[in-house]
Amino acid sequence: MVVLNDLFDYGLKIYQDENKFKFSLDSLLLAEFTNIKKSDKKLLDLCSGNAPLPLILASKHDIEITGVEIQKDINDLAEKSVKYNNLESKIEMLNINAQDTKKYFSRNSFDLVTCNPPFFKINENSKLNESIEKRIARHEVTITLEEIIEIASYNLKDNGSFYMVHRPERLEEIINYASKNNLHVKEIEFIYSNNEDYAIMVLLKFIKKAKIGVKIGSRIINRDTKTYQNIFNRKV
Amino acid sequence: MVVLNDLFDYGLKIYQDENKFKFSLDSLLLAEFTNIKKSDKKLLDLCSGNAPLPLILASKHDIEITGVEIQKDINDLAEKSVKYNNLESKIEMLNINAQDTKKYFSRNSFDLVTCNPPFFKINENSKLNESIEKRIARHEVTITLEEIIEIASYNLKDNGSFYMVHRPERLEEIINYASKNNLHVKEIEFIYSNNEDYAIMVLLKFIKKAKIGVKIGSRIINRDTKTYQNIFNRKV
Repeated sequence: MVVLNDLFDYGLKIYQDENKFKFSLDSLLLAEFTNIKKSDKKLLDLCSGNAPLPLILASKHDIEITGVEIQKDINDLAEKSVKYNNLESKIEMLNINAQDTKKYFSRNSFDLVTCNPPFFKINENSKLNESIEKRIARHEVTITLEEIIEIASYNLKDNGSFYMVHRPERLEEIINYASKNNLHVKEIEFIYSNNEDYAIMVLLKFIKKAKIGVKIGSRIINRDTKTYQNIFNRKV
Repeated sequence: MVVLNDLFDYGLKIYQDENKFKFSLDSLLLAEFTNIKKSDKKLLDLCSGNAPLPLILASKHDIEITGVEIQKDINDLAEKSVKYNNLESKIEMLNINAQDTKKYFSRNSFDLVTCNPPFFKINENSKLNESIEKRIARHEVTITLEEIIEIASYNLKDNGSFYMVHRPERLEEIINYASKNNLHVKEIEFIYSNNEDYAIMVLLKFIKKAKIGVKIGSRIINRDTKTYQNIFNRKV
């Protein structure tokens, strides 16, 4: 059933479908982690879902955002939310596979690319009772990690930034694929939950054709309040 | 001047030379991070310095350790410390370049390889007033990161573990070189200091020919007491 929810505390509304797709904390963290400079004009959000990241960033920044979502029902929700929040002048949704951005855009067209991709390989954690919509959003059914990184690099200008959220377990693959595609990791933030010793999420910032060298930060998340702070308890 | 110091609180003594080489916190952290299983028989410590890691691990475990140190003066200090602590039956020092372990040992001879390598590229942070001994220990003068990782893989049995301490900035290179040499990162621990937002050190555990997938932990170090605890303040 489609419902209209608050988009956390951003003063925005977002259409969701309880059975098919709801935005997750990952997208909020990714939106907060994404640093938009004054000179940035165009942002491409791959695997956009019901577009939480485009809504948040368009409401705060003077930037033109293209959201790409392969699932028609979910893309429809995104478009409804864009209209509801009066952000049509800033956000365009495209109901295509991220792969097909190569047909829509010429190489190096974007200042920024963001992505909250499916986290799991098809054979991992496959819950057969899950809806097909959820499976596509969570598993690499229609696109793989390697393909996403290659597409991000294709679309990004030299010196442009690619921001991604993912599972820490996959760090080796992420870094290998990124290096291969001229995306050099410049900043990593590991997210810890209050009761687990190992990181539960990783946020990564890559710069295309940058000098190699990365800074590593860590944040602890409070799942109840959805706030997060750095490991020395400074609010951020 | 050569002096005989306490090796932290391990009840061991270590010979040092204030002007040439003193062991650092990195080696203690690496020794603590290295997990030795009952079935492990042989450990190779590359870039061993005055051998703090061999001394610590040999004093605690039933294991045969080979330490490799290219600098003769520093290797001599290591040998003196091994004798002083009566660990000659467990530790053998070799005054050779790590590269030459390929002439000494046949492939896949070790259960474990450890390394606290030179951290800096030759052009980085080069202090010309530094002694040649310190420069070799800190900079990639006689060996590079890529060579060390290749040598670790050569010496390690399949399923054996490689433990390394390094600077977080170099994570991209470390992971790429390791993957290329069949060393898959299984555990990473980032070390934070009490007053800096970004990690100051990284400890990595690789397993040769392992399944891909890594766990990420973080520790905060108290530089005064040289204790370290995980980010939730549990002592470890």
